[in-house]
Amino acid sequence: MDDLHEAALALLKAMELRKKYMNLSKQAHASITTRFMTMARLGSRDQLDPRNDRMYYTAQTPMGDHPIHPPETEGDPFHVKYWPCAIPARLSFVQGIAHLELAEDSHSNGPTGDRPLLPNFPTVSLQEFIQDDCLMRSFVGSGPLKSFCYRRLSFLSSKFSLHVLLNESRESLEQKQVPHRDFYNIRKVDTHVHAASCMNQKHLLRFIKKCFRTRSNELVCQDKKTGKPMTLKQLMDHLKLTVYDLNIDNLDVHADRNTFHRFDKFNAKYNPIGQSQLREVFLKTDNYNNGAFFAHEVFSDLEESKYQNAEPRLSIYGRSIQEWDDLSTWAIDFKVYSPNIRWVIQIPRLYDIYHSKAAIISFQDMITNIFQPLFEVTLNPRSHPKLYAFLEYVIGFDSVDDESKPDTTHMDMNIPTPENWTKKENPPYSYYIFYLYANIARLNQLRAHRGMHTFALRPHCGEAGSASHLITAFLLASSINHGLLLRKAPVLQYLYYLCQIGIAMSPLSNNSLFLEYHRNPLNNYLARGLNVCLSTDDPLQFHFTKEPLMEEYSIAAQVWKLSATDMCELARNSVLISGFPDFVKSHWLGLNFWEEGVRGNDIARTNLPNIRVAYRHETLTEELRLLVTAALEARDFQPHPMSAGSPVHQKQVHPSERPHLSPKPLTELTEEA
Amino acid sequence: MDDLHEAALALLKAMELRKKYMNLSKQAHASITTRFMTMARLGSRDQLDPRNDRMYYTAQTPMGDHPIHPPETEGDPFHVKYWPCAIPARLSFVQGIAHLELAEDSHSNGPTGDRPLLPNFPTVSLQEFIQDDCLMRSFVGSGPLKSFCYRRLSFLSSKFSLHVLLNESRESLEQKQVPHRDFYNIRKVDTHVHAASCMNQKHLLRFIKKCFRTRSNELVCQDKKTGKPMTLKQLMDHLKLTVYDLNIDNLDVHADRNTFHRFDKFNAKYNPIGQSQLREVFLKTDNYNNGAFFAHEVFSDLEESKYQNAEPRLSIYGRSIQEWDDLSTWAIDFKVYSPNIRWVIQIPRLYDIYHSKAAIISFQDMITNIFQPLFEVTLNPRSHPKLYAFLEYVIGFDSVDDESKPDTTHMDMNIPTPENWTKKENPPYSYYIFYLYANIARLNQLRAHRGMHTFALRPHCGEAGSASHLITAFLLASSINHGLLLRKAPVLQYLYYLCQIGIAMSPLSNNSLFLEYHRNPLNNYLARGLNVCLSTDDPLQFHFTKEPLMEEYSIAAQVWKLSATDMCELARNSVLISGFPDFVKSHWLGLNFWEEGVRGNDIARTNLPNIRVAYRHETLTEELRLLVTAALEARDFQPHPMSAGSPVHQKQVHPSERPHLSPKPLTELTEEA
Repeated sequence: MDDLHEAALALLKAMELRKKYMNLSKQAHASITTRFMTMARLGSRDQLDPRNDRMYYTAQTPMGDHPIHPPETEGDPFHVKYWPCAIPARLSFVQGIAHLELAEDSHSNGPTGDRPLLPNFPTVSLQEFIQDDCLMRSFVGSGPLKSFCYRRLSFLSSKFSLHVLLNESRESLEQKQVPHRDFYNIRKVDTHVHAASCMNQKHLLRFIKKCFRTRSNELVCQDKKTGKPMTLKQLMDHLKLTVYDLNIDNLDVHADRNTFHRFDKFNAKYNPIGQSQLREVFLKTDNYNNGAFFAHEVFSDLEESKYQNAEPRLSIYGRSIQEWDDLSTWAIDFKVYSPNIRWVIQIPRLYDIYHSKAAIISFQDMITNIFQPLFEVTLNPRSHPKLYAFLEYVIGFDSVDDESKPDTTHMDMNIPTPENWTKKENPPYSYYIFYLYANIARLNQLRAHRGMHTFALRPHCGEAGSASHLITAFLLASSINHGLLLRKAPVLQYLYYLCQIGIAMSPLSNNSLFLEYHRNPLNNYLARGLNVCLSTDDPLQFHFTKEPLMEEYSIAAQVWKLSATDMCELARNSVLISGFPDFVKSHWLGLNFWEEGVRGNDIARTNLPNIRVAYRHETLTEELRLLVTAALEARDFQPHPMSAGSPVHQKQVHPSERPHLSPKPLTELTEEA
Repeated sequence: MDDLHEAALALLKAMELRKKYMNLSKQAHASITTRFMTMARLGSRDQLDPRNDRMYYTAQTPMGDHPIHPPETEGDPFHVKYWPCAIPARLSFVQGIAHLELAEDSHSNGPTGDRPLLPNFPTVSLQEFIQDDCLMRSFVGSGPLKSFCYRRLSFLSSKFSLHVLLNESRESLEQKQVPHRDFYNIRKVDTHVHAASCMNQKHLLRFIKKCFRTRSNELVCQDKKTGKPMTLKQLMDHLKLTVYDLNIDNLDVHADRNTFHRFDKFNAKYNPIGQSQLREVFLKTDNYNNGAFFAHEVFSDLEESKYQNAEPRLSIYGRSIQEWDDLSTWAIDFKVYSPNIRWVIQIPRLYDIYHSKAAIISFQDMITNIFQPLFEVTLNPRSHPKLYAFLEYVIGFDSVDDESKPDTTHMDMNIPTPENWTKKENPPYSYYIFYLYANIARLNQLRAHRGMHTFALRPHCGEAGSASHLITAFLLASSINHGLLLRKAPVLQYLYYLCQIGIAMSPLSNNSLFLEYHRNPLNNYLARGLNVCLSTDDPLQFHFTKEPLMEEYSIAAQVWKLSATDMCELARNSVLISGFPDFVKSHWLGLNFWEEGVRGNDIARTNLPNIRVAYRHETLTEELRLLVTAALEARDFQPHPMSAGSPVHQKQVHPSERPHLSPKPLTELTEEA
């Protein structure tokens, strides 16, 4: 067997592994990739070259029937219309993974009789994951496979250059012909932004000053020494501050030259005027006055721009089992809701700190604190009514912290299980992600069974540190944030392309922390067709204007000379990557947004030319077809390994036979539609 | 004589030349440079090392006595309180330069008897300018001088790196200690922006749509064939446009990849939807409905940000003598006024086009059309009352067009005078600038004599084309826009530094037209201490957000990792370069803003640390002292040229004797103040 065939088998194996984990956890897997993998598994060669035509018919839905703005929620957004009944199950954690068992007296079918109250959910063990991870590492390190993927990626870059040279003006023409739609009024989602830093520095200053002026008599914190409650006024006096003294300079929350490669200094920037007490009072949801200040301010800029949406991160730390109830109480009591928002829960990887403060003893405690309330509320919504209502707007989980900190423990079969992880060191990145994944998987199984929406795992990954993080996320995560290190790992980059894994990139954030702007790979990723989008990460630290997301797009457009088509593609990707419900996406992107190729694009909503969509679809299809064809050939000849050499070479697809770009029929069809 | 002494003599000679032209035209010349030049002329060595201390005392004025916002104009801003009497003089143009002569019967003294009605104004001839220009070219091309200046510039760069490493945190501390002042609420002036493109693309679209909806029955232009007036509605029907169809894409006014090195394509972007008729209707002041639409929109975004000011360019073409009256009528009838605005008049270098359309015959016609009304209104304000009122807010002249077009005629003694320039070719760049200069000089002499404010010449220069343009501007211009090519001409760059000539740079504009962002020299210029600031040029074509100037600062800050101190320095430079009246600047920058060094800085208004100001002042002083010392030495030994070699070397300032940076006493003094 030659390189092509070996590469094809390895890549398809890797994709099968990812698919297994996605299916198990009810996370989405790219439908086109799944289709080709099915062909490879079934050996059905005849479907490899379907009539392409149907992929080029676009299906626009009239705006009158299906407006671009989804209907607004009426009344209280947190009102629960229907409370599902309770399932009498017992929750336990077995080797760190949630396990559900029906109470003894209810081992019968459900009320309707045809569906068990609790089916046997498939499970995954740490051992299995370590095996798969190990196999993936061998792929990622394989020399021939690296060369193969590197060549394919280079080919994708060149092909895109060619596409742009040939079709740029056609793409532009397509955009011009769409009435009333342009980059400014298409939907963009800021898929990666931290709630605590979602105001820019100017906004935070204004907000602090406003609170000082109008609410200075409210009790906001406790005196550290006496434990007596203090009003905002007393806190100001204690810190020797006056409203007039405050300015952006002494607020000092903006990243600067000194934060480059200093994540610790960067984290300290979250403290206004270097005072963690002020962070506590103004930027937290769980402080002495229950996050009252923060609740009133967090969305105030966002609602001004109706086409911009965001998925801010709120923290659950796993220090205490009360955190979920506190957070949902904050959201519901202060009515923290906006149709432009869905929440993502971020879980900082801070076991070592909580352990040293004796808040938790084992890693299992952290898992229990994070997941037990979620299982309770899913089994019996009335057990945490506020949490149940709040979860309606939570769409996934993020895992955050400084990735460049080296892992002290190696991830192998001897690694302690969570209940036995009681040492003071932090568990490695993969360990965190695996146990997040495994419990989210079980939770999603239960929620899907109950007809509730499921959660996605979307960790920070590949911002710095080891490239092995990207292997973990490839197997377990729905999409990732950052992904900078893919530029150094061609096999993984190609796999992320083939599986169209979403990557929310923040070049301005990287520029301040890890990688200078002009070296950022976003532009290359986009050219090659990776599923990338732009996000702001921390407007408080990085942005200057009142429109951080627009600023992010603007700088990228200027530095990389992005065309209007590129920008609309980034914007559409951001909606696809986001966790907004499908019915909302169908308003924003078109009724068939989930379909492959041009059929899934409604240019009247996305302003993205069908030529570009068709190019992406053709290119991905071709790559997958190449792999599936090669893999089938390799399998045909595997019974006779000795004779495999030459016939395989004869059967290899000749370059001239490869389907070519066909811009002409494309535009004709587009214009008819 | 060695290189140092020759270089010093040459550089001082060049600076003397500039000073001559500045004095003659009543334009400002850097006071510190003038002071050192005087020492060199008088040979007064004892003042070369004055006690430095007084330069470090800052003089803040309390905000209560002298608020940061200058008092607002009350009533009609165009109301003229006092009409100066008429001077009975006759205007003629002699070899292209305005010449004034008193009418025969009034060759007496003025009404008060002690001051002549019209003194003899000094004059400059084209021949003299060509000689000076020629001398300058020999300096700029001299090998040893180039090496010398290059080394000094490298030295300035390294010295600044050192300064930043040592004093960065002190600078930051100084800024933090200033209450209530930060980068957001210091004054910034957009010193280079074209009025026709001062709205961003989104704003223009909204504006056009609003006019379509609310004013579609107004007559806006003439039918090209029949000559009948057309309403906006008819024009829309004619162009087959509906409000709903319009979007940013078909508006097509944003620069893109195709405008790089294509100034022609860039210019075409001014036409919305590629239709020059729409440009005429919406972006002109002299169209069929007298610029009614444009007048109502031009400032609407700017006034929102009270700390941002601008000097938009309005066009006078020189095609007809009516243009000034039309323009001032537009401004006054539509009350186009904002305290945040001062106007600069831009004169496109389009003789060849007007000549081919027979609007003018000789270049003299263009000069007459541009300057005759200005002299008339200065001699007798009541001759053009609206123009007189309008000129109150005009602060200077700009010269615009594509600099990369090669000059067809060489600028030498045989070049035709303006009245004889009747050929179809365009005159060279220097020819335009010289005749603009010569007539502005005469006009300024007259206006200064009459107690009226004078105008500055601030042409586009060094954006592309020949570096010789920068020589012309060095001699004749108060400040320039762009200056990119200084990076290739070390002698000129060093001279621009020594004379602190203002350079309004627009890296985003350059990025779309002539030079990629990361190669832009702005950051180097700033480090070396050139007097640079940031400006937007054309928000319509380049910017994405609602805050174009802030976007410009933001991108520069991100790409070059500018500190808050750098940004405040750029902002202060922009105010100093701008043509806002001194009393306004004294509110924005401090009462002593015109003084050298720290005394001229009021950190409570500029947020610029005194440490930075002191560094700039010390560094410039040192460079000038080096030159003056060397020049005096060279002159001492000139009578004995044979013996000049070694003694000069002995007298050269030893590096250890050079004054050193003294951050410690500096901060002590600052904190006392």
